Amino acid sequence: MSDLVKEVRIGIIGMGRQGKIHSRNIVSRIEGARLVCVSDIYIDSAKEFVASLDRSIDVYEDYRDIIKREDVDAVIIASPTTTHEQVITDAAIANKDIFCEKPIAPDLATTDRLIELVEKTGVKFMVGFNRRFDPTFKRVKDLVVNGNVGEPQILLITSRDPAPPHLEYLKASGGIFFDTTIHDFDMARYLVDDEVTEVYATGNVLVDPRVKEFGDLDTTMVTLKFKNGAIASINNSRQAVYGYDQRVEVFGSKGSAQAFNETPNTVMLFDEDGVHSDKPLYFNEQRYPESFVNEVSAFVECIRNNTAPPVAGIDGKIPVLMAMAAKKSFDENRPITIDSIQAEVKGGNTR
Amino acid sequence: MSDLVKEVRIGIIGMGRQGKIHSRNIVSRIEGARLVCVSDIYIDSAKEFVASLDRSIDVYEDYRDIIKREDVDAVIIASPTTTHEQVITDAAIANKDIFCEKPIAPDLATTDRLIELVEKTGVKFMVGFNRRFDPTFKRVKDLVVNGNVGEPQILLITSRDPAPPHLEYLKASGGIFFDTTIHDFDMARYLVDDEVTEVYATGNVLVDPRVKEFGDLDTTMVTLKFKNGAIASINNSRQAVYGYDQRVEVFGSKGSAQAFNETPNTVMLFDEDGVHSDKPLYFNEQRYPESFVNEVSAFVECIRNNTAPPVAGIDGKIPVLMAMAAKKSFDENRPITIDSIQAEVKGGNTR
Amino acid sequence: MSDLVKEVRIGIIGMGRQGKIHSRNIVSRIEGARLVCVSDIYIDSAKEFVASLDRSIDVYEDYRDIIKREDVDAVIIASPTTTHEQVITDAAIANKDIFCEKPIAPDLATTDRLIELVEKTGVKFMVGFNRRFDPTFKRVKDLVVNGNVGEPQILLITSRDPAPPHLEYLKASGGIFFDTTIHDFDMARYLVDDEVTEVYATGNVLVDPRVKEFGDLDTTMVTLKFKNGAIASINNSRQAVYGYDQRVEVFGSKGSAQAFNETPNTVMLFDEDGVHSDKPLYFNEQRYPESFVNEVSAFVECIRNNTAPPVAGIDGKIPVLMAMAAKKSFDENRPITIDSIQAEVKGGNTR
Amino acid sequence: MSDLVKEVRIGIIGMGRQGKIHSRNIVSRIEGARLVCVSDIYIDSAKEFVASLDRSIDVYEDYRDIIKREDVDAVIIASPTTTHEQVITDAAIANKDIFCEKPIAPDLATTDRLIELVEKTGVKFMVGFNRRFDPTFKRVKDLVVNGNVGEPQILLITSRDPAPPHLEYLKASGGIFFDTTIHDFDMARYLVDDEVTEVYATGNVLVDPRVKEFGDLDTTMVTLKFKNGAIASINNSRQAVYGYDQRVEVFGSKGSAQAFNETPNTVMLFDEDGVHSDKPLYFNEQRYPESFVNEVSAFVECIRNNTAPPVAGIDGKIPVLMAMAAKKSFDENRPITIDSIQAEVKGGNTR
Repeated sequence: MSDLVKEVRIGIIGMGRQGKIHSRNIVSRIEGARLVCVSDIYIDSAKEFVASLDRSIDVYEDYRDIIKREDVDAVIIASPTTTHEQVITDAAIANKDIFCEKPIAPDLATTDRLIELVEKTGVKFMVGFNRRFDPTFKRVKDLVVNGNVGEPQILLITSRDPAPPHLEYLKASGGIFFDTTIHDFDMARYLVDDEVTEVYATGNVLVDPRVKEFGDLDTTMVTLKFKNGAIASINNSRQAVYGYDQRVEVFGSKGSAQAFNETPNTVMLFDEDGVHSDKPLYFNEQRYPESFVNEVSAFVECIRNNTAPPVAGIDGKIPVLMAMAAKKSFDENRPITIDSIQAEVKGGNTR
Repeated sequence: MSDLVKEVRIGIIGMGRQGKIHSRNIVSRIEGARLVCVSDIYIDSAKEFVASLDRSIDVYEDYRDIIKREDVDAVIIASPTTTHEQVITDAAIANKDIFCEKPIAPDLATTDRLIELVEKTGVKFMVGFNRRFDPTFKRVKDLVVNGNVGEPQILLITSRDPAPPHLEYLKASGGIFFDTTIHDFDMARYLVDDEVTEVYATGNVLVDPRVKEFGDLDTTMVTLKFKNGAIASINNSRQAVYGYDQRVEVFGSKGSAQAFNETPNTVMLFDEDGVHSDKPLYFNEQRYPESFVNEVSAFVECIRNNTAPPVAGIDGKIPVLMAMAAKKSFDENRPITIDSIQAEVKGGNTR
Repeated sequence: MSDLVKEVRIGIIGMGRQGKIHSRNIVSRIEGARLVCVSDIYIDSAKEFVASLDRSIDVYEDYRDIIKREDVDAVIIASPTTTHEQVITDAAIANKDIFCEKPIAPDLATTDRLIELVEKTGVKFMVGFNRRFDPTFKRVKDLVVNGNVGEPQILLITSRDPAPPHLEYLKASGGIFFDTTIHDFDMARYLVDDEVTEVYATGNVLVDPRVKEFGDLDTTMVTLKFKNGAIASINNSRQAVYGYDQRVEVFGSKGSAQAFNETPNTVMLFDEDGVHSDKPLYFNEQRYPESFVNEVSAFVECIRNNTAPPVAGIDGKIPVLMAMAAKKSFDENRPITIDSIQAEVKGGNTR
Repeated sequence: MSDLVKEVRIGIIGMGRQGKIHSRNIVSRIEGARLVCVSDIYIDSAKEFVASLDRSIDVYEDYRDIIKREDVDAVIIASPTTTHEQVITDAAIANKDIFCEKPIAPDLATTDRLIELVEKTGVKFMVGFNRRFDPTFKRVKDLVVNGNVGEPQILLITSRDPAPPHLEYLKASGGIFFDTTIHDFDMARYLVDDEVTEVYATGNVLVDPRVKEFGDLDTTMVTLKFKNGAIASINNSRQAVYGYDQRVEVFGSKGSAQAFNETPNTVMLFDEDGVHSDKPLYFNEQRYPESFVNEVSAFVECIRNNTAPPVAGIDGKIPVLMAMAAKKSFDENRPITIDSIQAEVKGGNTR
């Protein structure tokens, strides 16, 4: 469904943490959208949550009950990555517009097939890279697009979590490049407004020695080269004891746009020991609440105005290629081109 | 009603700007409360707004239809000041807990009578000084209460609006001390945690010469003396072209706690002309959204836990005395004690 | 001597703390000036200091040995205030250009007589209000003069010492308005670029109860009204435990120029407890070293270019009138006009 | 000469920009040192400069006239790099303590030989990496050494010049890694307090296409791996239009120490367009004046106290190895170990 509509009727598939965030936002803060129904295999828990929203919203165990409803215009897919293929396929065939949390699929071949499918069916397909919709990063992007920094030459991204997730989560995460740096790969493309040609990655295990056991890293530094000649450096850590550290800088021929961390208040205490203020906001949900509202608003608007989604299928795919290049670069300790990864993929290696 | 309840059922009287803010917050963000019904003499407009909330909420033309409902625990009074006396009286008699926007009443005699009434009936009565519930000012208060600044000695409040309201509004506002500085009078008492004994006020008309015609000011400076010896200076302007300027500093024997303005993002642009960032947030609704949520949450919690409201009737009255002292101080160009105002009031002058 | 000269030959009278600062600056950092000789009644100490400068500089016990030298173009008077009358008189008659530390004289009648004398003799006469020459405050002034803040409407000055001086010093200081606020009175006139008409002062003893014994204050708040309608608030404290707190803000019709404290470095530490940086610079000599260089450079340049000194005799006198008004305002707890002080002075009260 | 002395008598060899800076500092700001004589092959220009210092300082055309003086304790070598070998040799043999501007020599074999020589003769030998002595970077180092950041894990250095030097200078500079990044290589070792094992460098010509003609870069990004597992990223540009951009961050297990740019004043202007402040300080001489004083003070103190110089010969050599590794890394687009460079050097390749 892509005709101009007054109100976009949405079903959410998957009522985990992210599904709940989207539910609350649609109910209370997003113009032009109505949450019609949700689904989750843990239907009791979903029912309890939906009751707290105090609206008439249907709850299903099977997502297909959402997709078969004619009065649902669009779906938000917030179920586990392994389910995406089936859900996207069913939704696209049922002509529902799709907002899908990243990653699109666990492997590139599936990703490509799904991108092709949604293109063929003509449904809107948007990938959930929320940080693009954060007001601070959006402002940096605007300064780049409006020419205030001139030609981008250097990009710096600092992206550090306040604390590592559970080890079990880490083991299943696919590795730091696919789980964490992937957001920064997207941010890099977004801010420089150009494509990356080569990746060099290094890293170490400095936070928790146990991640070595399953071959992952917790502290990384990635260098990117862009087509336009710009160079980027991304550093990640699983543990910044002072909170979620999310900064970017785009330096160019006319200046430098720098985004600093958000804080819970603006208070400074001057005392005998020095000057003190509170730590940056703790994590994802504290730091990026507006981005979750803004990304779904953008999805709703692209449906209502029949315009292209601001984050397309290809934008979901390329960061995966970059993560693959980073992984290989670290493994072989040499820079890896994106082209070589693409060639490998075509040759059958889909990670 | 003041027994411990699971969910506080609220009716809102007056669906103007502030009534709408409270409605949205209760519906979407305040735990333990339910918006049951609202009233406004412009019932059609109220109905239209309530429809947008997408909940089953009753809408009345007459506020008495709210008060007579047995299933309503508490009312929020957001109707014009001139209606407060009747509404508070009716609500208190009907045993409804009351959250009332400031000022309580247009004159002190009525204010006193209403404070007495709510005390007698035993209903909760909370006055809407929202800025106390702003996270930034709350943090300053905490630093004072926790002893981080030591004994408060100097308080500075800068409180400037981005643009003056319509002239018609200004004419009916009661003057800048009653309309604008009153918030800062409350903030001064809150932050220093003590009572003011004397007020010296000066000011001028520097923004719009037309306010001279009805004897008001648009640029003011007020000095306060506190019982504990601390001294405060409050400066107000009706027009800060760079946005809403809301800063405080509490200086004491052990340090200084300073609150700066909030900004829409944290981006800095470095270019050939210097370093640039965006202006502070524009006005009340952009700057203080959390305070409106937090103040009604506090009201709801004091009902659920049967504790005293954090802003009592007396807290609504004293800033009015301070504004009266400021007005008189400006008129007579000399410092005026609060005691002398109290004495006058008892002698019959109720402003 | 006021003809254009290649090098201004200077004698410094009084080798206390300030005389030494000027000596070092002239020797090492001030273009177009040569330190020829100095004098101090403690000649041995002066000789020892001068030896450390490693230049051929004559040292006298009697300042008249400086003034009688034909090869001395100008004198810097850094001896105690009580000596100023005689020294200025002798120097002016000997046709030496004069830089005199503030205050010009201990009373207004003498001040007036000396101002008249230097005008009659035609020597340059500059008063040492060094803070005008601080790069930060100079920048604020430039923004005012260049129109960036528009018409000045509100001026805020925070001026707090890190620690009180010895009690004996305080007893002889003439009181906080004459000793400390006097710098801020000068700053107020300088930044607003206009004259003050009325002063209201309040204050308290909150730092050290012993200052009460000799009728002084250690915490003050002064309100000023300017001819052009602007209003100022100055707050002083004898003890800011976090260092020398020297901030100003000029708010006007087009914006606000704000000067913050200087710090020893730009480092911020983010840790589990928050964000920390070092305290502001400790005191006068750490905070204002450049101002001392710049003020004497300005003196030297006005001699070399035969232009008017940037801080004239009248600029030394008016802050004293303001301090007198502040003292009287505090004593009588009412605003005092500068005109009334002037009238009193003419009537014989010269403080 | 390395006995404890009251005053260190210094001769400066080379009166270019840096020689003049040291001369002025010794004359006016460095305790315990006396500038006795200087030399420069452009003796007339040197004489003119020395005259401006207004001291009795001898000026020679031939540096050997300095070295042969028995009353000279130490020399500062600020002559061109090509002269260092001869001057250091002569000075060491004459038993003068030596402060030598970096680089020690144009090639590593000579560097090694000179380091060996000064060790054998036992004279103090200090290399001029001034940035270590900047109060801001020193503060970061202290926070690292004192354990405030815990174990260093990530180091970020941003080091950008405000404008490129003349093309002729660039052609002779040895390339950006040897001319610019070398300071950051030293800073990296200094701040992390550990040795680098591997270097990966990339870069581009984005400022001035003419530097391509002689095979240099003007925009670079270098990744370093440290023995202790920490990772660093250094970015350089020949042109930051907003001024000299000199920032560092050391991130570790307990926190992050971040150094920001220095500014000419602390003023912020708030107006209708936003918030504005002045650009960072322009360049080397504006940004690092204190470092030049502090480094020579440290040299003087190590002589007076007979302690080891804080920047030794090896500290002059290692950054050259790192620059060689960076150059090779860029040329071959792969990471290069320092060990492999050392091996090559021993095998005869001395750059």
